[in-house]
Amino acid sequence: MDPPHDGGLVLRKQVLKGVKITVEHNCLTTLIRRVLDFGPMLTMQDALARLTAYWTAQGCLTVQPMNTEVGAGTLNPATFLRVLGPEPWRVVYVEPSVRPDDSRYGENPNRLQTHTQLQVILKPDPGNPQELYLGSLEALGIDVKAHDVRFVEDNWASPALGAWGLGWEVWLDGLEITQFTYFQQAGGLNLDPVSVEITYGIERIIMALQDKTHFKDIEYGDGISYGEVFGQSEYEMSRYYLDDADVAANRQLLEIYAAEAQRLIDAGLPVPAHTYVLKCSQAFNVLDARGAVSTADRAAEFGRMRRLAGDVAKLWVARRDELGHPLGLVSPLPPAAAYSTPAERTAARTLVFEIGTEELPPAEARAARAYLERALTEGLAGTRLEHDEVRTFATPRRLIAVVASVAAREADHVRTVKGPKVGSPEKAVEGFARGQGVTVDALTTAVLNGVQHHVVEKHEAGGAAATVLAGVLAKVVSGLRGAKNMRWNDPQLSFSRPIRWLTALWGDDVVPVALGTLAAGRQTRLLRTSETPVVEIASAETFMETLALAGIVADPEDRHDLIVTGAQDHVYPEGRVDVRGEAALIEQISFLVESPTPLLGTFDESYLSLPDAVLTTVMRKHQRYLPVRDASGQLLPMFVTVANGPVDVELVRAGNEAVLRARYEDAAFFYRADRSTSPADMRERLTRLTFTDKLGSMADRAARIATLASSVASSLGLSSATLNRAARLVKFDLGSQLVTEMTSLAGVMAQDYALHAGEPRDVAAAIYEAELPRHTGDALPASIPGALLSLADRLDLVTGLAATVGLPTGSSDPFAVRRAVLGLLAVHRAHPALADFSLVSGLATAAEQQPVPVSAEVLSAAGEFLARRLEQALVEEGRPVDRVRAALVHYDRPSVVDALLSQLDGLVSNPDFVAVAAAIQRARRIVPADTTAGYDPAVLQEPAEVALHEAVSAVKADFGADLLAFTAAVGPLVAPLARFFDEVFVMAEDPSLRAARLGLLATVRDLGAGLLDWPELRL
Amino acid sequence: MDPPHDGGLVLRKQVLKGVKITVEHNCLTTLIRRVLDFGPMLTMQDALARLTAYWTAQGCLTVQPMNTEVGAGTLNPATFLRVLGPEPWRVVYVEPSVRPDDSRYGENPNRLQTHTQLQVILKPDPGNPQELYLGSLEALGIDVKAHDVRFVEDNWASPALGAWGLGWEVWLDGLEITQFTYFQQAGGLNLDPVSVEITYGIERIIMALQDKTHFKDIEYGDGISYGEVFGQSEYEMSRYYLDDADVAANRQLLEIYAAEAQRLIDAGLPVPAHTYVLKCSQAFNVLDARGAVSTADRAAEFGRMRRLAGDVAKLWVARRDELGHPLGLVSPLPPAAAYSTPAERTAARTLVFEIGTEELPPAEARAARAYLERALTEGLAGTRLEHDEVRTFATPRRLIAVVASVAAREADHVRTVKGPKVGSPEKAVEGFARGQGVTVDALTTAVLNGVQHHVVEKHEAGGAAATVLAGVLAKVVSGLRGAKNMRWNDPQLSFSRPIRWLTALWGDDVVPVALGTLAAGRQTRLLRTSETPVVEIASAETFMETLALAGIVADPEDRHDLIVTGAQDHVYPEGRVDVRGEAALIEQISFLVESPTPLLGTFDESYLSLPDAVLTTVMRKHQRYLPVRDASGQLLPMFVTVANGPVDVELVRAGNEAVLRARYEDAAFFYRADRSTSPADMRERLTRLTFTDKLGSMADRAARIATLASSVASSLGLSSATLNRAARLVKFDLGSQLVTEMTSLAGVMAQDYALHAGEPRDVAAAIYEAELPRHTGDALPASIPGALLSLADRLDLVTGLAATVGLPTGSSDPFAVRRAVLGLLAVHRAHPALADFSLVSGLATAAEQQPVPVSAEVLSAAGEFLARRLEQALVEEGRPVDRVRAALVHYDRPSVVDALLSQLDGLVSNPDFVAVAAAIQRARRIVPADTTAGYDPAVLQEPAEVALHEAVSAVKADFGADLLAFTAAVGPLVAPLARFFDEVFVMAEDPSLRAARLGLLATVRDLGAGLLDWPELRL
Repeated sequence: MDPPHDGGLVLRKQVLKGVKITVEHNCLTTLIRRVLDFGPMLTMQDALARLTAYWTAQGCLTVQPMNTEVGAGTLNPATFLRVLGPEPWRVVYVEPSVRPDDSRYGENPNRLQTHTQLQVILKPDPGNPQELYLGSLEALGIDVKAHDVRFVEDNWASPALGAWGLGWEVWLDGLEITQFTYFQQAGGLNLDPVSVEITYGIERIIMALQDKTHFKDIEYGDGISYGEVFGQSEYEMSRYYLDDADVAANRQLLEIYAAEAQRLIDAGLPVPAHTYVLKCSQAFNVLDARGAVSTADRAAEFGRMRRLAGDVAKLWVARRDELGHPLGLVSPLPPAAAYSTPAERTAARTLVFEIGTEELPPAEARAARAYLERALTEGLAGTRLEHDEVRTFATPRRLIAVVASVAAREADHVRTVKGPKVGSPEKAVEGFARGQGVTVDALTTAVLNGVQHHVVEKHEAGGAAATVLAGVLAKVVSGLRGAKNMRWNDPQLSFSRPIRWLTALWGDDVVPVALGTLAAGRQTRLLRTSETPVVEIASAETFMETLALAGIVADPEDRHDLIVTGAQDHVYPEGRVDVRGEAALIEQISFLVESPTPLLGTFDESYLSLPDAVLTTVMRKHQRYLPVRDASGQLLPMFVTVANGPVDVELVRAGNEAVLRARYEDAAFFYRADRSTSPADMRERLTRLTFTDKLGSMADRAARIATLASSVASSLGLSSATLNRAARLVKFDLGSQLVTEMTSLAGVMAQDYALHAGEPRDVAAAIYEAELPRHTGDALPASIPGALLSLADRLDLVTGLAATVGLPTGSSDPFAVRRAVLGLLAVHRAHPALADFSLVSGLATAAEQQPVPVSAEVLSAAGEFLARRLEQALVEEGRPVDRVRAALVHYDRPSVVDALLSQLDGLVSNPDFVAVAAAIQRARRIVPADTTAGYDPAVLQEPAEVALHEAVSAVKADFGADLLAFTAAVGPLVAPLARFFDEVFVMAEDPSLRAARLGLLATVRDLGAGLLDWPELRL
Repeated sequence: MDPPHDGGLVLRKQVLKGVKITVEHNCLTTLIRRVLDFGPMLTMQDALARLTAYWTAQGCLTVQPMNTEVGAGTLNPATFLRVLGPEPWRVVYVEPSVRPDDSRYGENPNRLQTHTQLQVILKPDPGNPQELYLGSLEALGIDVKAHDVRFVEDNWASPALGAWGLGWEVWLDGLEITQFTYFQQAGGLNLDPVSVEITYGIERIIMALQDKTHFKDIEYGDGISYGEVFGQSEYEMSRYYLDDADVAANRQLLEIYAAEAQRLIDAGLPVPAHTYVLKCSQAFNVLDARGAVSTADRAAEFGRMRRLAGDVAKLWVARRDELGHPLGLVSPLPPAAAYSTPAERTAARTLVFEIGTEELPPAEARAARAYLERALTEGLAGTRLEHDEVRTFATPRRLIAVVASVAAREADHVRTVKGPKVGSPEKAVEGFARGQGVTVDALTTAVLNGVQHHVVEKHEAGGAAATVLAGVLAKVVSGLRGAKNMRWNDPQLSFSRPIRWLTALWGDDVVPVALGTLAAGRQTRLLRTSETPVVEIASAETFMETLALAGIVADPEDRHDLIVTGAQDHVYPEGRVDVRGEAALIEQISFLVESPTPLLGTFDESYLSLPDAVLTTVMRKHQRYLPVRDASGQLLPMFVTVANGPVDVELVRAGNEAVLRARYEDAAFFYRADRSTSPADMRERLTRLTFTDKLGSMADRAARIATLASSVASSLGLSSATLNRAARLVKFDLGSQLVTEMTSLAGVMAQDYALHAGEPRDVAAAIYEAELPRHTGDALPASIPGALLSLADRLDLVTGLAATVGLPTGSSDPFAVRRAVLGLLAVHRAHPALADFSLVSGLATAAEQQPVPVSAEVLSAAGEFLARRLEQALVEEGRPVDRVRAALVHYDRPSVVDALLSQLDGLVSNPDFVAVAAAIQRARRIVPADTTAGYDPAVLQEPAEVALHEAVSAVKADFGADLLAFTAAVGPLVAPLARFFDEVFVMAEDPSLRAARLGLLATVRDLGAGLLDWPELRL
């Protein structure tokens, strides 16, 4: 988008000012380039050379790509091995990265089986890697002040490598161009020092710079396109990966490679072993692209690769230790310098404290702000400094606390030190005095806890504000923790993202906070693109103003408002942004920028023919754009994106539009292809999609769901033509291209495609509803056919996986069985019409259909798992634990549990119910568990017991699972029961009498049997 | 050697002038660099970047190394596929090249399992690739005027790829730094256009530039060495390739890869198929490094890879055809422009004709000079131009013909055109006249072959010299052919190396020779390093002087003399160069330079402890240096190398010394290691060396040789302790490191190591002699034990290979069976003591020991092969064919054949011998073949036959294979035979008489039976 020559941008902006833009952006740039003679375009090979030269100048070695296929530059030993251990390392290299799964025969404009990464490793973290990175963009001729360059949270993990790190995707006008990661672990080993890994996606960057819409059109070298150089290879390798690779041969290769890797590990040779791990990975990826890897295979292979990679890493580290670390050791950063004593002050002043970070993830920034407020408030409370309220702010790059009127000194203070009791031996008293550094004369006495003691009264002067605050603030910083923490180049700190500076001023004075390598000062950092990115703050009182003048909106609520009003202004009058509906997204955006610059982009109206869900999924999930709708709620061909700071709006708009266009073009391509395929044909493709190794294909699974739903329906008398038809098509859209790309659209696309194919509306709806709920809080099936399919889906999943992989334990739940169980509960609870359907019997029926045996133990464990999830859900909903536990006897029919709990809400204040319940509980306590209900009424003697007998005999136990009916039925027992317990001694000496009384009580006990778990109820 | 900054060299030379060099070269350079502040050293990564940038500026694309292991940049599809077909292509890339066989655990200073190539492809040949290449060296900061840069013949072929090309190694002061090839064929397909392939060996270049003696010391990046970056990998990958790679696994991989390659070829996908061919190659190389490939395996695998690579190439070409050649087609060069008519001249002038080429191989230059002389002489003879003798000259870069006094015009000429006989019909005469464009009046008559004809006499004006010469010279050029020819960018020409210019002057005038894209002019090219590399020649008469002034010595004899005298001057007085002994080398050198600059280098005396053969093999074969000896013939620690042109002598000397030092250091390393190993231990290693798949290990072979030699010895009564001991050690040095490196030293090193290990002198000599003769004209074993071992060696080789691989046919003789057979003959002939030993019986005995059955047919074919080689050898030695064929009846004992031929030399003029021989031949003609000797003497009647009978009966047939004895014995038969043939009619009517006479003649016939094949003899 940006010609590679200095000054070009300015010229272009001048031209644009007076021109109404009517030509396509694409043509425009070309036109301008031609008219203004910007010079030759930066070719891809030149870009690679420039980036390499730039990083070489930063002290990076240049090495070559790996000479075996790798999926990413990270796998090259120049990264994977060299980030391990204590030796320093800086490297840059190009890595053509092979992703068989991304094969598209060269037809997809944005996806290639081999794309080009440029990989940089900086070990240790140099302290300013983001700034170095931005310098590299400038080396490419990208004016980072004009563009919207953003660091958007993205945490990287490679389970197969036992590796992870925290960092960002870097966005250039909405386009992801780089992965930026602080590498924390590799091969399962903690990395110390931490490496910074910067991975450029070269094709994307070049497409943006050259304004191309298809990778084949990239100008690779002068006068020769990417397609001309790599097009044939792209097609043929796609053919290999998708169609022609021999599955048996690649399986054999995988085994040979793994065995060779293991042998080399045993021989103590990490370098060749690593090569074979990489070959394993490629063979696995080929199999995967050929659709020959089941979910279970995948887990097993990942496990094996992780184990091998871990062994390689350990070996490498050990070998480098043995070799005595030939590259030397990273020298630790010097600790922060000491401060001189602050001047004496008397007046109260404002405290401002800023913790400067690299871009924090939104949730982390929010949480850290709350922590800051709490910790600082508590910290100040631990001092004797007078102060006003603690106010806090947060942006992605800073956490700020401001406290007005902080006193210059703490009040002075007398502290009483307790000595021996008065009357203790003289030696003890002398010893105490000596210990306190005073003479015995200086001791006084005081009554402490009612006993008179010798004491010393110590007069302590209050500390100066700066000194006192320094301790408090240091503790605040060292206590900072995120949900997921990382290390960088500081030996003492750990947080969500690196902390790079501290600004701490009390009035005019720097608060001498020092910790790790950080020392607070009066400098703060403004936007990276400011004319003066670093400024000095004269006094705490001017701090917030300085930020504000620099365009930084410190208060998240202010940013929220700016975004909302800015967005509405931009879209007015035709459109509106659904502020309530997009609340979560707006909240997120307000933590992605510190200087919100909302701007409106448009897209071609033709894309509106795509389903709403497709358009908004791309906007929200992929791009964080706000969708715009008209008054009737219909999407308009526009979006609001929020840039950070004073960018070149036209440029940024055009960039974001190009990104969205590319994404929609992709989606439209798939959508058209899908719509030209019948649901039946898509369904047919499920035979080629493995569900799991042992549980067959997705087609098998869909067939089981259909059978199960039909069987449940007929058992409940709920069979219907709608269900029959929907069951025949259920899950068919998993065979569509769009759902393959965006799995979150499963069900949604099914409905769309089914309607398009002429299926009845209720059938289409039921197929959609079969996927509900997709996550907690999601909509639930509205129709009975939908609910039945949804239940059948989840019953099949749970039984099959419980029998093969096992139920989830702890946080490990790779197949989302927990979510499926929660779905079962939610759907059942939402449909009282299904109240008679027992989920446990449903599990049993599902079990019969599995291609593997499902044992009774497994079924019982699954039932128990379901019960526990239900209990947990109800408690979380605020139901009292005792009632939940009492009602949980009906866990297999959760809607029944719901009904009982609702009744209990009223009944707990119903004296009859309470009395009978208490009696039942009392009866259970008195009567041995093995006593059966029933007795010889003739034996009963006491009137109270006879009365009870008569009352009990009169109760008609036809109240089902209805506590109200129960209460009504047992109402007449209340008085006789009270009398019985008052007047009758159950444990009579006469055995037959005692037996009759126990039998009578057992009968009372059993009145509520099966209705509730009575002992759980607290009355 | 050369600091990378301009001007550095000049400064350095100034410093050196006043300094006596006492410090080591290594230190010196460092010192100078420090003192003069040459700036930072060019690191390896900078060198790669500079070369890449240089070639990119020449229009090359930059691509990445192949992402599967390759042995050379040639295998990257950016070369292997792109050189095919008609599309243009220019590319530069780095290629880390994996040669498992070169693994040395990182210990060898000059050899790595992975070395770095920088590969350039220029398609089509741009016409000046050598000049472009020299520019790239300048881009590295190498002053090509100061250094000795040479293009030394080296033809490249990869049998596994079906690829070959002609070109050079480029030497920088004796160091091979680049392979430069005109690629002629790939995948078995002819390349049109031809590509220029330039492959830099980066580590070598950098070691030279940085003055390092071990690759690990290369400064790879600023402050980080090659060893630090790649050392551990070098060690570990060496471990894998040499020790730890699983042979079974790699065999499996090879099969899977080959099958996958074949499947992809069948699927029509050349790109992935090529990848799998490369994987085959790597798996094969791993097996080879592990010693798991027999010679037969190798041939089979090469065959398979060649077939696969050929199929890939064909597919690629077909696919590019289908795609319509997306990169376009190479535009043909325009033909040479036409000349204007030369001015009229009258005086005779000198003709000079120069054919300018790129560096011709010595043998080709010599042959081309001879051709030029012959062709021009013949060409001029076909004209009517008066001229003096044709003189020719040749250098590596030019072929020159000079002809003095070439007349300005041809003499005018009357040509008589023969018409019909006088008396022919009028119409015929008229037709003739019309055909000749004259009227009948213009006809005259002449007697031709005794018949009178009508004729036309045509007066033809002689052509102007320039015009006539142009035709002659063009024909000379187009007729140029080398022993091995190539194409470059000229559509019409083909020669050993490209022809780049023609200089053709007759006096002051350009001779307008034009052919293909070449047009002769008055420009010639001087040395590439001249201030004016191209100059205009005013007139032919000044041409040779111009060359001479520029330092170019056109006459090879002059160069030879300059080299010889220069060398002798340099080494005088201590040393001398053995001019006669080194004649072949000097002859070669005189065709490697056109401006010989002999210079003396020295090496450390300590290397003189290495065997003479090791030192001289390295000097002669690898470096083309002349060894220097003292008066007693002992080597001195010095050598003469001959640079081309006015180089910086100190610099070039130092460079060559460094190269030799590195080579000697290598050799010394191996020599020390070998000497610390006992011959028995080395012999033990032969068990791990495969001879061929079917014929077992080298140890098996050595054991067979020992047994065979002993058995032959005892059959001849020649057994000895020497033989027994030598047989136990024979071939042990094949297990030494030095012989593994320099196979030509086999035997020589055995003798050295055996003596060192305390073996008796005659034993050591016999082990050495077992290897003799190593080539035609080589020394033969002097001792009987040596001869027996030599014979046994060759008998074993011939029978084993004849039975498994077959006898050589045509030019295909991969196992050098032909040479072995020639050795058998030569050794036998050299040892009359072995005259009784039949080589045919030797073959039979050898056959019994083979691990495979050797059929009678095979043995008989081997005998026949031997007979044919003997016949050929004797004829080539000048023996008359008839006698050779006659004596060849003893081919199994070649020394007997020799003896018989010597006797025949005298006997052919001995009338007795001639008479008897004639009688024997006559008898053979008369007597039916099945007639046995023997008759009833009583039947004989005629006195002549009775006399013959008596004479025959008196002959004592005890003359063995001694023709003199035979002649003496049969002398008395001469007269009776003559009388018999005169007087007796053999075919008498009486059957019994006829039978007796035939029997008598058969007896005469059989007198010489087994002595000669009599009918062959021409008397």
